[in-house]
Amino acid sequence: MKLVTYSKIPATGTRHPGILLDDKRIVDLSASGFTTVLEIIGGGAGALAKLKAIAAKSDAPTVSLADVKLHAPIPRPAKNVFCVGWNYLEHFEEGAKKLEEKRELPRHPVFFSKAVTAVNDPYGTIPFDAAISTSLDWEVELGVIIGTGGKNISEADAMKHIFGYTVINDVTWRDVQRRHGGQWHKGKSFDGTCPMGPCIVTADQVDPTNLKVACRVNGVTKQDSSTKFLYFKIERLIAELSQGMTLEPGDIISTGTPEGVGFARTPPEFLKPGDLLETEIEGIGTLRNTIG
Amino acid sequence: MKLVTYSKIPATGTRHPGILLDDKRIVDLSASGFTTVLEIIGGGAGALAKLKAIAAKSDAPTVSLADVKLHAPIPRPAKNVFCVGWNYLEHFEEGAKKLEEKRELPRHPVFFSKAVTAVNDPYGTIPFDAAISTSLDWEVELGVIIGTGGKNISEADAMKHIFGYTVINDVTWRDVQRRHGGQWHKGKSFDGTCPMGPCIVTADQVDPTNLKVACRVNGVTKQDSSTKFLYFKIERLIAELSQGMTLEPGDIISTGTPEGVGFARTPPEFLKPGDLLETEIEGIGTLRNTIG
Repeated sequence: MKLVTYSKIPATGTRHPGILLDDKRIVDLSASGFTTVLEIIGGGAGALAKLKAIAAKSDAPTVSLADVKLHAPIPRPAKNVFCVGWNYLEHFEEGAKKLEEKRELPRHPVFFSKAVTAVNDPYGTIPFDAAISTSLDWEVELGVIIGTGGKNISEADAMKHIFGYTVINDVTWRDVQRRHGGQWHKGKSFDGTCPMGPCIVTADQVDPTNLKVACRVNGVTKQDSSTKFLYFKIERLIAELSQGMTLEPGDIISTGTPEGVGFARTPPEFLKPGDLLETEIEGIGTLRNTIG
Repeated sequence: MKLVTYSKIPATGTRHPGILLDDKRIVDLSASGFTTVLEIIGGGAGALAKLKAIAAKSDAPTVSLADVKLHAPIPRPAKNVFCVGWNYLEHFEEGAKKLEEKRELPRHPVFFSKAVTAVNDPYGTIPFDAAISTSLDWEVELGVIIGTGGKNISEADAMKHIFGYTVINDVTWRDVQRRHGGQWHKGKSFDGTCPMGPCIVTADQVDPTNLKVACRVNGVTKQDSSTKFLYFKIERLIAELSQGMTLEPGDIISTGTPEGVGFARTPPEFLKPGDLLETEIEGIGTLRNTIG
């Protein structure tokens, strides 16, 4: 099942959860009792069964994709988005080479967070402000959505805690990332720098271990890899993140980006106003964001 | 005005906002229409005026502090707590010395975040788990609560955006802080490692530029400084944090800790189960947390 959050055009200001049926239609969940995707996630297996029953009805009410605006499936997470750094070896190496740093291979995942206000729509505009910097960079990432919360989750149990998967671009103001004493939070948390969606695919519908991940700028492929190259696998990320820290339903973990980011290219490339940023993961969908 | 969040003993599970009158009584706000301190903050000047009118009544309903349990004034922030690193010069220098690093003085504040699930009561137990590590450390910090949100707030306007101040201990699992590729998020986000309170003092009642800050372990003073030694002042922190990133009512900024933390002592000292951690800021109050 593919879950989306949408609002009707012309805008009413109200967002609704829906089920994406195909590339044309969404099942309207107005009468389901759920008002947000977060509520559905919190409702566990019972909520999913209810939704499946609604979608299976031949007369399920639908709306046309052409008549709605899609938002991030979780437009307002209940806490910052957990992010993982240096989680594809080639990206780790391109960064080390570019920054002329000698680095040992990581023994633990690198965790940081993006502010909830950074979340953006799958087709939303990403603000550009030359007064901040001109080094706006891209990072396609597989997003993992937690379904069942927990603390000290074992690697063996980790996959059972996943509700589904989404596409995230961990858009980064690269030189701001580096100028705050080495902590990345500020450079990763600007408004609009976390486009997400277009849907959440439930965990029963996708095998996350070998999905193509790609990022294109104005149609030119910049990143092209697969989740099979994740250095720390999803099980390890969940186990280590949940050590002594409670994960909750609806928590989002962005699992890191492969090689091909702008700053590491020769010469370096960055996003400019008017650029079209496309972020795609096999089996989930494609974000299309214009730089504003 | 001093705002608190409390629940009645024996526990009913319901938390209420209240006004701390003195060291014995809280004005009960059950009939005010506000169910959380976050709602009061979001209500702006009108909400504060309403509360002042309630507190001024000679027959205002009160509850005894002896009959309640105090919680963090904002038990569940709407996003991660913004934190500032290395913001007292002596702490910056003790860290550099201990870690044998040569460091230039920072030109920008160091920002990172603590997960919302880390928030703890002012007199709550801080979990200890030797399986994680044994280097549990203390960091007394002045917490700034945003009242009026905004983006690109100027230093000149920054203080107008503050609702009030609270006491925070940015409790840290020190070696976990260092083992995630230099990103501090994980080592700072364990459950219970952000005790906060006992109240929020509204901005009209306190001058934050010269408040004594102190931290004691089992009655022995470990940190003893003043907010006058903040390297980046509150105006600068708000201006820089809000650059391109929207701050919202109820956002919490923990402004950094002075010298005297455990890891930098000779020999290093860390918290052990049974220790009493006291965290005090002049004019606001004292947190008393036992290590569990």
